[in-house]
Amino acid sequence: MVLIARYPHTERMAQSVLLTGAAGRVGEAILEGLADEHEWRLLDRDPPTEDHPGEFVVADITEGDTVREAMEGIDVVLHLAGDPRKTAPWESVLTNNIDGTQTVFEAAIDAGVEKVAFASSNHAVGHYETDERTPEMYRTHDDYLLDGTELPRPGNLYGVSKVAGESLGRYYHDEYGLSVVNVRIGNLTEGHPPIDYERGQAMWLSYRDCAHLFDRCIRADYDYEIVYGISDNDRKYYSLERAKDVLGYEPQDNSARHDD
Amino acid sequence: MVLIARYPHTERMAQSVLLTGAAGRVGEAILEGLADEHEWRLLDRDPPTEDHPGEFVVADITEGDTVREAMEGIDVVLHLAGDPRKTAPWESVLTNNIDGTQTVFEAAIDAGVEKVAFASSNHAVGHYETDERTPEMYRTHDDYLLDGTELPRPGNLYGVSKVAGESLGRYYHDEYGLSVVNVRIGNLTEGHPPIDYERGQAMWLSYRDCAHLFDRCIRADYDYEIVYGISDNDRKYYSLERAKDVLGYEPQDNSARHDD
Repeated sequence: MVLIARYPHTERMAQSVLLTGAAGRVGEAILEGLADEHEWRLLDRDPPTEDHPGEFVVADITEGDTVREAMEGIDVVLHLAGDPRKTAPWESVLTNNIDGTQTVFEAAIDAGVEKVAFASSNHAVGHYETDERTPEMYRTHDDYLLDGTELPRPGNLYGVSKVAGESLGRYYHDEYGLSVVNVRIGNLTEGHPPIDYERGQAMWLSYRDCAHLFDRCIRADYDYEIVYGISDNDRKYYSLERAKDVLGYEPQDNSARHDD
Repeated sequence: MVLIARYPHTERMAQSVLLTGAAGRVGEAILEGLADEHEWRLLDRDPPTEDHPGEFVVADITEGDTVREAMEGIDVVLHLAGDPRKTAPWESVLTNNIDGTQTVFEAAIDAGVEKVAFASSNHAVGHYETDERTPEMYRTHDDYLLDGTELPRPGNLYGVSKVAGESLGRYYHDEYGLSVVNVRIGNLTEGHPPIDYERGQAMWLSYRDCAHLFDRCIRADYDYEIVYGISDNDRKYYSLERAKDVLGYEPQDNSARHDD
């Protein structure tokens, strides 16, 4: 009841969630925070090295048949799988990030999944960080904010692959009514970024806030959204308004505060 | 001198132009109008069936080495090659449209090309044509206009591939200073569309205006642009302002007038 009062969205309790790229860092943060909150099916091409909740499917995201099987009975997909390197070569992001994401969306539609949260990236808009704007845009007093209504400006070919993934989400939402949220993740690190690393301070996403943000992607109701995924840093050039308003995101951490 | 007065841009005379997808319909319209205007190198996987200006390279757009060779000495690339079917399957647009376009941009950078005009499509924004807006948006009195500042909403997987191609253009412009224009082409037909085909009336691009528009993409100076490619139709839901202001586009045809 309290939850419903705080977030004016339909709330669900435990959901069946497929987490692709479960062995990566974002997956680690999510599972640290939410292992007991949902029924998990984990998928990664690397087998698990530690204890994990739920089932684990060892498969590459481009293996259509296996991805389709893994989608059965799933309510929500958190799609993180892909080459995470900002310097990844084109051939890899074409296959793992673009083609892999299309495989996931197509399988989600076939299986009747309700929502897909896609792990997009700050690199989808990396070239807004121009020589003219930096380092000013990283500073607390600077009021330059990206809010998701701006056109993409990828900073590298990895970023291009994330823009392509977002546009797949837009298409599968418009065509089939699938709920889709593209989460442009900042810099996820377990500890606070160095105080003199200005960009890192502005882009920080703590593990705790990351888990909470994806929990909101699982529980909230939405149509199609682009949100930024950072903590509530004093320095920021990404707006958190859509994440707060639509998803009910309430970040707890701030790169400028070490007393959390 | 007169040209410089009309268009406040640096004007060049004949340019060395590489036209990919030269054997397709857009290529046909361009060559009908501009065969004698520039020095042409044509590229298509289908060999020529008729007389053609300049050189002809028979190659698939995904053949990197051949595309790189074809780029030598080129000032401007008009990149039309790709699967043109709005119902094209994902595997085809992934290879021919997305990967092929990255091959073209990469080769253009390596060869020191100045400008690339990319044949994007109305399908990159096809899902703005919602049930609520149509058919009103196709009508003369309706003032709904897309102008290129809106976020993409692809209408099919072909449209997704065009969004990906546009974002490649954005990246190669931002990263390397390449001039890039994405031309969202409407419905190119040699004759006027049927008077009772409302969407076709609104989307029409005549062969003459198509050739002129790509001539402006070759001659004008620009940084990064998204323009719509239609004739000056009474019915329209695409703004021509950027094409007119930046490129000096002056369309002659109008789907509502048969007396041109």
